[in-house]
Amino acid sequence: MADSVTVSEATLRRQMAALLAAWGMPGDEAAASIEAMLYADLRGIDSHGVAMMPLYGEWLAAGKLGRGGAMRVVAETPATLVLDGGGGLGHAPGTKAMLAAIAKARAVGVAVATVRNSGHYGAAGHYARLAADAGLIGMSMTAAPSPAIVPTFGRHGMFGTNPIAFAVPAGRNPPFVLDMATSTVAIGKLHLAVLNAKPVPKGWAFDAEGRPTEDAEAAYAAKQLTPLGGSREQGSHKGYGLAAMVELLSTFLAGATWTVDYKGAGLFDIGHFFLALDPRFFRSEAEFRADVDHFVDTMRAMPRADADQPVLVAGDPEEAQRVARSKNGIPIPTMLLDKLKKTCADAGAEFVLAR
Amino acid sequence: MADSVTVSEATLRRQMAALLAAWGMPGDEAAASIEAMLYADLRGIDSHGVAMMPLYGEWLAAGKLGRGGAMRVVAETPATLVLDGGGGLGHAPGTKAMLAAIAKARAVGVAVATVRNSGHYGAAGHYARLAADAGLIGMSMTAAPSPAIVPTFGRHGMFGTNPIAFAVPAGRNPPFVLDMATSTVAIGKLHLAVLNAKPVPKGWAFDAEGRPTEDAEAAYAAKQLTPLGGSREQGSHKGYGLAAMVELLSTFLAGATWTVDYKGAGLFDIGHFFLALDPRFFRSEAEFRADVDHFVDTMRAMPRADADQPVLVAGDPEEAQRVARSKNGIPIPTMLLDKLKKTCADAGAEFVLAR
Repeated sequence: MADSVTVSEATLRRQMAALLAAWGMPGDEAAASIEAMLYADLRGIDSHGVAMMPLYGEWLAAGKLGRGGAMRVVAETPATLVLDGGGGLGHAPGTKAMLAAIAKARAVGVAVATVRNSGHYGAAGHYARLAADAGLIGMSMTAAPSPAIVPTFGRHGMFGTNPIAFAVPAGRNPPFVLDMATSTVAIGKLHLAVLNAKPVPKGWAFDAEGRPTEDAEAAYAAKQLTPLGGSREQGSHKGYGLAAMVELLSTFLAGATWTVDYKGAGLFDIGHFFLALDPRFFRSEAEFRADVDHFVDTMRAMPRADADQPVLVAGDPEEAQRVARSKNGIPIPTMLLDKLKKTCADAGAEFVLAR
Repeated sequence: MADSVTVSEATLRRQMAALLAAWGMPGDEAAASIEAMLYADLRGIDSHGVAMMPLYGEWLAAGKLGRGGAMRVVAETPATLVLDGGGGLGHAPGTKAMLAAIAKARAVGVAVATVRNSGHYGAAGHYARLAADAGLIGMSMTAAPSPAIVPTFGRHGMFGTNPIAFAVPAGRNPPFVLDMATSTVAIGKLHLAVLNAKPVPKGWAFDAEGRPTEDAEAAYAAKQLTPLGGSREQGSHKGYGLAAMVELLSTFLAGATWTVDYKGAGLFDIGHFFLALDPRFFRSEAEFRADVDHFVDTMRAMPRADADQPVLVAGDPEEAQRVARSKNGIPIPTMLLDKLKKTCADAGAEFVLAR
């Protein structure tokens, strides 16, 4: 038995569309979800693409996630937008919010859109990248429903992995795309340590009592992550501060529900934050793009600590994956394939990804 | 001989004013510099207040820093501002830029101001805090003239300590004020290790060849800092990405000179970034402030890993210092006092801080 099968982008699109349609999601919202999930699957961000669909199915069944079709503009001005996501998946409201911010920023220079009452929106980088593809600087942040990041000196998780994404268009080069959780590592890395029967490195995780642990089983069971920095001595108060910033901009500015206040029943009510900034209001576009190229080229060409290990620029690994997977297809682990088969059966959707 | 003398805020103001006047700085710009430096000195951010003045004197003498009086608006729209700092200290252009962003954000919801051709602007938190004091969310970032942060897998510094500051107004509580370098630690901490004859913790610094080092002398001599995270395994690519984000927004969006491209002669040409965001365009102000209070109160009251060590919120240690130093005065190390005496003598300024 193979550990994974490889499917084309087109096949994966058909599978996603079949499931979303079976769940009763409107076609335009489903299209936004497919683009957002494929953004991740094509770029090797495997935790945020089709791998989420079994969980989406569980959340739908549990009444934590709506079926879409209920987005609503709450407030709008030339530079701002407040969107109610209608309690469904976050991809469509996220896309609508970022596209609105882009259009507004083109007109007035900078714009911010927030989304409340939303669900999981996938990879934050997708939204920042939408701005960069339009020639603008983009930023996106989101809260997340599971408490994971433990504040410095705290005993349990108070934030999701609260990512920050930031993208800038270049000229010759692909955009600079930073997409980072504000935890030291993702929970997936703790799971990998369990699967490989290895300890987790010091500074990654806490046990259920908030004590630093290198025991993979204890760490994965507790799912309590350090903020970026890992320990107070290594600057974890900065990672904690960034996670708090993401929460304040995503949840609190949008008027959504903090994961700590979520009672575990009813729709998630997650908040997202989107900012678009048009560099043409600040400099000549040609000079700006040429300077970003100079920045990217200089970083890649700089002297290396290890001759075999090049200095990368944010977005480089994902872009290499995109090129490879667009050509060769996207690997789907058989364990995920089996889950998706069950998700399709539960939803009454065609299982397109036959082994 | 005492290791430090304690001076009142009023005395320190007089000393700063005397020096700035002797340097020929216009009164309005000097006033902005004094506020920015005192912001730091009152809050225990001792590296960014009066302690910078001897260095400012050296930079003036070396022709790297102008004497002010040459600020100029390059471009302005209802939501954006581009300011030329005129090559002097960054405090006055930074203050002018942030106050403009605040006024614009009040009118249109969100605004961004950039400054090019500027000098050292002190503590980034001062500018973010100006927005919070006006009831807005503020953000500020700046590049810095000395390469210090070594990119993941790189061999030498390519960024200054590139700070991110972010402030949010609360209701009953003082504002949330995050002000963090994107390095793991400041260079001052390496100096402290030398003075105390202690090794530097693993993950803080590199030697001159870009190898991780725990040797304090080698680390302080090289002044090569890890990005937040410390090592690739601990997420230093995220700290590197954040440092790059700060550079792209501060230097490249503003059209200033990257520290890597600075030839070591002529004015510094540093860039700064300022963003102001009015929460009233997104939610009721009262509800927003009450929710930020709820956030701050919940964090402070959360279960502790160590019963004796409370969970703090960004800005708490600085606020405690402000309360104490406003009452008891500001300690000035005698070593700094001697330097300031010389700086005053060189400038022909009155030495107010007599021992």
